[in-house]
Amino acid sequence: MTRPVLLDDAPRLRALLRVILRHAAVWLAALPGVSPAQAAAPVPPPRTMAEVLAATVPADWRPLEPEDTLYLQLPQGRVVIELAPAFAPLHATNLRILARQKYFDGLAIVRSQDNFVVQWGDPSETPRSLGQARATLPSEFTVRLAPGLPFEPIPDRDGYAPEVGFSHGFPAARDVARGEAWLAHCYAMVGAGRGNSPDSGNGAELYVVTGHAPRQLDRNIALVGRVVRGMELLATVPRGSGPMGFYEQAGQYVPITSVRVAADVPAGEREALEVMRTDTASFRALVESRRNRRDDWYLVPAGYIDLCNVPIVVRPRS
Amino acid sequence: MTRPVLLDDAPRLRALLRVILRHAAVWLAALPGVSPAQAAAPVPPPRTMAEVLAATVPADWRPLEPEDTLYLQLPQGRVVIELAPAFAPLHATNLRILARQKYFDGLAIVRSQDNFVVQWGDPSETPRSLGQARATLPSEFTVRLAPGLPFEPIPDRDGYAPEVGFSHGFPAARDVARGEAWLAHCYAMVGAGRGNSPDSGNGAELYVVTGHAPRQLDRNIALVGRVVRGMELLATVPRGSGPMGFYEQAGQYVPITSVRVAADVPAGEREALEVMRTDTASFRALVESRRNRRDDWYLVPAGYIDLCNVPIVVRPRS
Repeated sequence: MTRPVLLDDAPRLRALLRVILRHAAVWLAALPGVSPAQAAAPVPPPRTMAEVLAATVPADWRPLEPEDTLYLQLPQGRVVIELAPAFAPLHATNLRILARQKYFDGLAIVRSQDNFVVQWGDPSETPRSLGQARATLPSEFTVRLAPGLPFEPIPDRDGYAPEVGFSHGFPAARDVARGEAWLAHCYAMVGAGRGNSPDSGNGAELYVVTGHAPRQLDRNIALVGRVVRGMELLATVPRGSGPMGFYEQAGQYVPITSVRVAADVPAGEREALEVMRTDTASFRALVESRRNRRDDWYLVPAGYIDLCNVPIVVRPRS
Repeated sequence: MTRPVLLDDAPRLRALLRVILRHAAVWLAALPGVSPAQAAAPVPPPRTMAEVLAATVPADWRPLEPEDTLYLQLPQGRVVIELAPAFAPLHATNLRILARQKYFDGLAIVRSQDNFVVQWGDPSETPRSLGQARATLPSEFTVRLAPGLPFEPIPDRDGYAPEVGFSHGFPAARDVARGEAWLAHCYAMVGAGRGNSPDSGNGAELYVVTGHAPRQLDRNIALVGRVVRGMELLATVPRGSGPMGFYEQAGQYVPITSVRVAADVPAGEREALEVMRTDTASFRALVESRRNRRDDWYLVPAGYIDLCNVPIVVRPRS
């Protein structure tokens, strides 16, 4: 794992592949129904993820919308969450209201279950008021497929949904027959805990996936966004020893200093981040670079990628 | 997420399902070619994982073989690793030799990459001798399919392999056409780092999966076992800030107190654990309980399970 391994034949194999593809293009161009332009379209050579990223242009990246970005401040550092109002608009609204009321300040991470989730909320016996925020919300577990909803499918088959891919930059799934789309429970996704009825979530208790994707939660609970920076702070909090990873003593809680909407933070104190767009040729090349690893260390390319193994790259804004 | 939600109609739906299945049995019994005994075989009602576990018998469990068990002692506690000699016999032998030479004592966790792996080995500039252990080993990335190799497939399709399931209690995959089987990179699996050639691994540098299953590593590196207790200790070590999660300063290393073969530890100091067998009807029922969650909180059962979401339960020996 430490040092990359050189696959000696890789350059020769790649050269051979390019020759084959060139000949195939000529051969295809001679067939009826295939335009020469289409058949002769340049076939880009396989690239590593580093090569794909190095070749991106500014249009391949998007900034975070300050109104759709939350800063979760912990004593250990700042966690940046991008909200997904296209999938959970009512939860996003409630979360902005709660943050602006400083509802979360002084609350705590109350649960950390290994290979599953961390969760935060109000640990007190006498819960504080939600103020202007709604106490219950319609479930928002799925959205109706509408013409305006972008969806960039990946060709890789998935066990949990008929089709998976990306929507508004988030990992997502859709079922055209049912006319529904939903966000997928990949690592770093943020959801709104709910209690004993589908509409009992309100955003006051949030969880973040810290383990192998618990996709069985898809369509059962509202995902509201994704951690785009600071996952390592949430993933390393000590696991709780109680049932489902809840802490059993108040001294184990990880305190929350504050939660703020980025738009309310002075510009100079905001995180200058940009996220790779998922609706570009560069992103499709990135997915391919991970589906079939071209890094010299790999001997056998997988020929497949699980939705939750596709990295949605975040970097300092250029 | 916090409290289970009651799906009010679940008991009625289950009762209805039982009625349908009873009638179907009678109807099937009337068809030619279906024996009444077969058709009328009792259809067990769907069960939760808790119900499945409560109904297990001693034969559903197996002890850990002391010769195939390593104790990784950290200042934070003990991590228990079950070796997989059926898949990596040479690595298992080398690891026993290294442990018996106290090779690992005083070494350190040198890498923690978020959502990927932790890795330990010798951080020093002048590496210590491997003694009687071999410096390189044949790759052991896959094994030949042999009649003696147990394999219990799950019916759920997988993107990385033609077939997945369990072998000797480990998550595994096989390709009958190629005549190969291999262990799968699920959470908690332990592998032997390798360098710039396939046979450069020797077990002196081990890694453990701490994130979403990096199945693209399957068949590219030797998996040697699985952490069966103490994953929370490895999963929470601080992430390294260097490339690939390596620590950049010696002060960040997590020291390893010792690694011992359980057989060499006095009986009274061993972990009294047992692992659920994967070749039983109880285990198949457990998989089904996770494929379609019957817990009242769930509204939509997934109808599918990813190999790496199947829990291989470990408990104190009864």
